[in-house]
Amino acid sequence: MDAPRSAERRKSDTLARLERDADAWIATADVAGSAYLLPLSFFWDGIGMIISTPRSSVTARNLGRGARVRVGLGEVRDVTMVDGTAEPVDDKQTKEAFAAKHGWDPRKESGDYVYFRIVPERVQAWREVNELRGRTLMRDGQWLT
Amino acid sequence: MDAPRSAERRKSDTLARLERDADAWIATADVAGSAYLLPLSFFWDGIGMIISTPRSSVTARNLGRGARVRVGLGEVRDVTMVDGTAEPVDDKQTKEAFAAKHGWDPRKESGDYVYFRIVPERVQAWREVNELRGRTLMRDGQWLT
Repeated sequence: MDAPRSAERRKSDTLARLERDADAWIATADVAGSAYLLPLSFFWDGIGMIISTPRSSVTARNLGRGARVRVGLGEVRDVTMVDGTAEPVDDKQTKEAFAAKHGWDPRKESGDYVYFRIVPERVQAWREVNELRGRTLMRDGQWLT
Repeated sequence: MDAPRSAERRKSDTLARLERDADAWIATADVAGSAYLLPLSFFWDGIGMIISTPRSSVTARNLGRGARVRVGLGEVRDVTMVDGTAEPVDDKQTKEAFAAKHGWDPRKESGDYVYFRIVPERVQAWREVNELRGRTLMRDGQWLT
């Protein structure tokens, strides 16, 4: 097990992951309290994680409720967890940036795709058990470091 | 992109993953419809995925509701999704097998750990978009192949 990373290092690792990673696990829930989970492509626009999914999908319906979302990035032994809320996004600049990152443009799909921005309220990052202490990097939308 | 796998191959890949993988993403929800997500170690006992978590944890509280759970295994581009329900487990044999697999025995932790078996009702597996067709391998608890 490596030595635990400093708070600064964890924050920079987390920001690098948000900017570089292509996909994340998106956990949502419906009003009845059933959980849903799917890996989706995302784009970090500096404020939140932009995702795109068909309007009729379970994820879109759940995100449309405005309830809390939880996102897992990375590997199970090098994890970043993001708790946030989702807001609909409909501007051209965001959609262009999403397509540029992924080489995939949901606007060209036959289905009716919608976009959401998942805005982090809490961010946690840890690798092994020795990093559980100090894992919270953002609280109430504010970076702690 | 590789050619899509046959149903038989996806099933054998999925069973191999259930037996071999150490961790999975466990998505649960509370009664208010807020999603929770965490990577946890699991052990496949042939019927379901055995997990262990502190009794006071969000995951344990959500699983105790008996609502639907959704589990993601593998990588975001080689994914297995399991929908199921969780039942409490309290037999010694299961706890021994869990500890033997992981070299980690929750009974030796200071906290009060409980065990659940997540029994699959639906299993889906796909790698890239060309495997979305035929991704459902189990429905209503029955393997389709």
